[in-house]
Amino acid sequence: MADPDAAAPPIAVASSDPPPALPDGPPPKVTHRGRVVTPSASSNEDADELPEFEYFVAPGPRGLPSLAEYLDILEVDMLKKPDESNRVQHHTDLFNTNLLAVRRGQEFQVKIAFDRPYDATKDKFAVEFGIGPSPQFSKNTYVPVFPTPERQSSWAGRVAETAGATVTMGITPTADAIVGRYRLYVAVVTPYGVRRTKQDDSRDLYILYNPWVKDDAVFLDDEEERAECVLNESGVIYHGTWDDIAERNWNFGQFDYGVLDACLYIMDRAEMPIINRGDPVKVARIASAMLNSRDDDGVLVGSWSGDYSYGVAPTSWTGSTNILLGYYRSRNPVRYAQCWVYAAVFNSFLRCLGIPSRVVTNFYSAHDNDGNLKTDIILDENGRIDRKNTRDSIWNYHCWNECYMTRSDLPTGFGGWQAVDATPQETSDGMFRCGPASVRAIKHGELCFPFDAAFVFAEVNSDVVFYSRQKDGTMTVVKVKKDHVGRLILTKAPGSYDRRDITHLYKFPEGSVEERTVLEKGEVYGCAREQSELPEADVELLLPSLEVAVGDDFQLDLQVVSRSGERRTVDAYVTGSVVYYTGVTSADFLFKTPTVKLEGNQSVKEVWQVPARSYMKKLVEQANLHFIATGKVKETGQIITAMKVVALHTPKLSIKVSGLSKVNEEMTATMDFTNPFSFILEHVYVRFEGPGVLSPVFKYYGLIPGGSRVTWAENFTPRRAGTTRLIATLDCAALRQVAGQIQLDVLP
Amino acid sequence: MADPDAAAPPIAVASSDPPPALPDGPPPKVTHRGRVVTPSASSNEDADELPEFEYFVAPGPRGLPSLAEYLDILEVDMLKKPDESNRVQHHTDLFNTNLLAVRRGQEFQVKIAFDRPYDATKDKFAVEFGIGPSPQFSKNTYVPVFPTPERQSSWAGRVAETAGATVTMGITPTADAIVGRYRLYVAVVTPYGVRRTKQDDSRDLYILYNPWVKDDAVFLDDEEERAECVLNESGVIYHGTWDDIAERNWNFGQFDYGVLDACLYIMDRAEMPIINRGDPVKVARIASAMLNSRDDDGVLVGSWSGDYSYGVAPTSWTGSTNILLGYYRSRNPVRYAQCWVYAAVFNSFLRCLGIPSRVVTNFYSAHDNDGNLKTDIILDENGRIDRKNTRDSIWNYHCWNECYMTRSDLPTGFGGWQAVDATPQETSDGMFRCGPASVRAIKHGELCFPFDAAFVFAEVNSDVVFYSRQKDGTMTVVKVKKDHVGRLILTKAPGSYDRRDITHLYKFPEGSVEERTVLEKGEVYGCAREQSELPEADVELLLPSLEVAVGDDFQLDLQVVSRSGERRTVDAYVTGSVVYYTGVTSADFLFKTPTVKLEGNQSVKEVWQVPARSYMKKLVEQANLHFIATGKVKETGQIITAMKVVALHTPKLSIKVSGLSKVNEEMTATMDFTNPFSFILEHVYVRFEGPGVLSPVFKYYGLIPGGSRVTWAENFTPRRAGTTRLIATLDCAALRQVAGQIQLDVLP
Repeated sequence: MADPDAAAPPIAVASSDPPPALPDGPPPKVTHRGRVVTPSASSNEDADELPEFEYFVAPGPRGLPSLAEYLDILEVDMLKKPDESNRVQHHTDLFNTNLLAVRRGQEFQVKIAFDRPYDATKDKFAVEFGIGPSPQFSKNTYVPVFPTPERQSSWAGRVAETAGATVTMGITPTADAIVGRYRLYVAVVTPYGVRRTKQDDSRDLYILYNPWVKDDAVFLDDEEERAECVLNESGVIYHGTWDDIAERNWNFGQFDYGVLDACLYIMDRAEMPIINRGDPVKVARIASAMLNSRDDDGVLVGSWSGDYSYGVAPTSWTGSTNILLGYYRSRNPVRYAQCWVYAAVFNSFLRCLGIPSRVVTNFYSAHDNDGNLKTDIILDENGRIDRKNTRDSIWNYHCWNECYMTRSDLPTGFGGWQAVDATPQETSDGMFRCGPASVRAIKHGELCFPFDAAFVFAEVNSDVVFYSRQKDGTMTVVKVKKDHVGRLILTKAPGSYDRRDITHLYKFPEGSVEERTVLEKGEVYGCAREQSELPEADVELLLPSLEVAVGDDFQLDLQVVSRSGERRTVDAYVTGSVVYYTGVTSADFLFKTPTVKLEGNQSVKEVWQVPARSYMKKLVEQANLHFIATGKVKETGQIITAMKVVALHTPKLSIKVSGLSKVNEEMTATMDFTNPFSFILEHVYVRFEGPGVLSPVFKYYGLIPGGSRVTWAENFTPRRAGTTRLIATLDCAALRQVAGQIQLDVLP
Repeated sequence: MADPDAAAPPIAVASSDPPPALPDGPPPKVTHRGRVVTPSASSNEDADELPEFEYFVAPGPRGLPSLAEYLDILEVDMLKKPDESNRVQHHTDLFNTNLLAVRRGQEFQVKIAFDRPYDATKDKFAVEFGIGPSPQFSKNTYVPVFPTPERQSSWAGRVAETAGATVTMGITPTADAIVGRYRLYVAVVTPYGVRRTKQDDSRDLYILYNPWVKDDAVFLDDEEERAECVLNESGVIYHGTWDDIAERNWNFGQFDYGVLDACLYIMDRAEMPIINRGDPVKVARIASAMLNSRDDDGVLVGSWSGDYSYGVAPTSWTGSTNILLGYYRSRNPVRYAQCWVYAAVFNSFLRCLGIPSRVVTNFYSAHDNDGNLKTDIILDENGRIDRKNTRDSIWNYHCWNECYMTRSDLPTGFGGWQAVDATPQETSDGMFRCGPASVRAIKHGELCFPFDAAFVFAEVNSDVVFYSRQKDGTMTVVKVKKDHVGRLILTKAPGSYDRRDITHLYKFPEGSVEERTVLEKGEVYGCAREQSELPEADVELLLPSLEVAVGDDFQLDLQVVSRSGERRTVDAYVTGSVVYYTGVTSADFLFKTPTVKLEGNQSVKEVWQVPARSYMKKLVEQANLHFIATGKVKETGQIITAMKVVALHTPKLSIKVSGLSKVNEEMTATMDFTNPFSFILEHVYVRFEGPGVLSPVFKYYGLIPGGSRVTWAENFTPRRAGTTRLIATLDCAALRQVAGQIQLDVLP
């Protein structure tokens, strides 16, 4: 190929010039060119239209053939009003939307008016559905549905009724159809081409998950559970401490106007491939990453800092609607969230799409990132807590979600409730997210299956290990508390406002044979436990439960109980500190070092008065006090410990309603609050809402002087019958998590 | 607590002022305050020092007590020279580093000179190791090692030798120790405090994975494999087509100066928790995400666009060293990579840390993101390919890595080779990465275990499904090719430059009972196959193999073979197109529509001459031609197909060496290239390097006229004995993947 006419080839020499400089400006954005023909479809919002006419033939000398003799479509009625059978039978009547919303795996109907009666023997038409950009038949993003039994695609079609020129088509999407917003067309097929309805947004429809249908991966065979975990907008989230439980009411708002679009946008924002959106496992996984703003500019910015002046304090929210709509409209993460806010908004997302879900609270929730089951507390050689070396990692409580689904990606037996968690605690596999982890797999220690089963396992099963730190930096295990973490796991009972204890879904009973087997199995998968076998001490420290209101003086008791026949002397250290609900210590306010002498089998109580002034100035937002008592028994050298978290009770808001509780009748709700303190509350926000009765509203008070009273009367008109709750919060930097609620039974 | 002296409480009113405006400026960066005490340690670079003196006692009236009577440390010798026993016995003598590098689970020694002889009965000392910020005993980021049998921490210590005031300490890190760069201190413990050596970088040491030790998770019980997969810097990566295989030589450079620090920096950049770095599963997973720049500003920017003017063309690289050092020094992703560059640099990373690894090439690699095993090719009603609706997704070849390790996170039986892939093909669980997936699990269809086994399964097992697209948009399956994808999987054989076929590690033989069982098992986990049972056609199309050089005219044959006793007529379409190696079509250059008539059992050959000018102007970088023949048998209506990729051969560089191949003797290598074309090659880069003999160098030629010759002589001095290769590439926009190599046996 060298030029044959050339003489001896010339020799090129390396250029004395340097290589050309890089072009100006930043390098071009890397494209998909040469790698894939089209990037994968990952936006439900960016839908492509189908052409109104699609000729099969090239224009002849006289132009295109006329389609006049073929069926023409005059009108399509989506039968989408809330009281029409599509909405009622599909359990979507609560959605506040102008479009049809139906569930997959179940027939819905649309009414098509043609220009003349339809003749099955010669007319050919199809109802076509498209989702996302470049809908494709082979990806199930384009689905034609035919009226004739001889010709059927994956979605079944039938003529349900014919009346004159109007045909009612029954359409049954597959039970694994892609979930999202589809476009609908009616197409008449002729030998010359396809004549199609013009794209019209009002014919868009949502296809959702269907827990009422056996073939759907989210099928839940219990009507009461479905009514709660899909349809209930009113929720209760537990907090406080396991022996003094507090409740937050919450409006999930999954049926509010715009919320469904916001939920679909969250998947678009994650660039989740459209074709994966029919798989609830993938949807739950993506959402657990997207509900927090870490990594991916997701929905909620977490903050535990106490300074929320750039947004709304986590304790101030009353529901999910404003959060989801705020994210959807601004396309920016919403400030601020802590665990229950993540769990509540995640719950709204799941229920909105039709995936059964609930919020759970785990009291004393461990969290660590080295995949072991040890939570370390370091004591010095005398048994006093060594704050510098102790990395607190037990949250007083932690909220996450459970969602219900089969797990086709796992062997059989691991379907049912799946734990998912959107709170950015630790990265799971490189991103802040967690789950879905099969709750059954967690209970049985089968931790090798995706996703994050070992992490949730550690949250409910860790041991608290007390080390004594020697002067050369080495440490000895002196005590292991095996029953502290995962003390109680609660969720709201379906159909009532009662609590349901679901600890047994996560763990076998403490001390049972099964429990030991499971913990051993966990070790096989890298969840290392503390192995030291320490003799049971014959002296015990006890800190009793306490119910204390913010601002109260109270009494702290330390009980020292000896089960030994001999004399015992205990050098004890009692530290009282103000902690965040994450277990992180903010400031110590009490320190006592009693020496207690006990005769054989004696019990001695040490009592201290704790004045409010000692802790009030140091309180952080959730007003938790943490007491740790440690001690060394002189005669045996054993270390003994006790721990107690006291969640101080905050003042309540009272809410009263007047008027007849009846749909479309105006009523008045009056919120009433008195500042119980002698100091002024500044920059106070009061928020108010109620599912189906009152959209979120707030008021701002610059000052509420000590002892003064605030009332706020708000008129509202119930939109639907049934039991609901009005929820209010009051929030300012000096006083958080003040809330009130009132139940309302609205008559039809 | 309301003020008791107050009269009836005043009523606060909602402020008429709006709530205060948000503070100026962007919201503050969210901190960990209130959430965790300290963020988790995730940087090996940011190491904290231990104090030189740590007194246990408070200063008295006469100041601090003197430690004069206690042992003092004069000098610590790390025994770190390449020929000292630490380096030789730990197989780290090839590392070009000023620091000690050893492997875990195996004893190494350091020599400590005290101010007087050590007396085990009264002197107490420890050798201390720390890694990362805030080293902690309970996290194994701080490890003291003691000389006395009575007192041992997790790492064993012993006095190996005493000579005067000098003690040689033997230290054995656990076989699961954290891998990375540690600081070393010697500490003398006295009743008053600890006296420590001052922090000194020259005493830092690397602890690496150890495939030579049974208890290490990366233990590989085969010396030849270890020599190849850990110690060999010289690699071969296969490309081209399965029936015309081409080779790229590569310098992995894992022992080059700075490469080890660069590899540790990659984990720092990923903010990988230090405590996870002893787990090869987690390291491989993180690295598969970090080797590409997507999501996380990782090492290499992928580009398949053909325009590489902002960096180095993927085809131009000769080794990993410059890439890793470039990333480490600039802290910016390096431009540009395609799959073999990702695989090669990932291989350097793994071998550098001591995780056995190799590069594999899969010929005809499917890739899709909907978790099914179908790769769609759409034909129109006549059997002609419909480019608009076909989303190409079979790469001519694709390279990934395998790394060897036990899988403690999985049930037993899934250890051994694990597939990992750093090429950003599709997101795995939200990020661009893939694996580690147990190759054994892939072979046996056990796809429920992490990570991404189903994705790799699809890459080697997908069916190619040909659809015929009807006018109304629906499609019918007309042909399924089950043996096209995953045609051949190759890696370099250990200890030679031969190929090793490892297809059987991924798949049971085509057509075997086990193969069917595995594919059925895959379906259980969501890897759906095409179920259509189509009758075997009695006519076959065949496109024979071709070996063609760039710029050559050649002949294309299409063989039509009838196995029917009757007459057959085939309307065929033959399309020749230029494709990227990713299977994406760039341009068509040939289109033929023969009608072939066959008598019973006849075979007919259609022949076309393809002149170079028809494809030369359209070539894209890897110069692949793709032929698809489809046809419809008139008599039976059956659709028949054939596909063939032809990788055009590029001209070679020749390399000659002169001089004696002996360590430390200067030699000369001469690279020689003649432009075989009649056109000018512009902006040409020639690169040259060789493991252990020549560091990467390049030359730039502004122009190489048609027919002209380039020679380049470079002097070099072999640094070590053994077999190695000199590797050169020549690269410009008009001509890519020109390469040459020469083998060199260096005498000691």
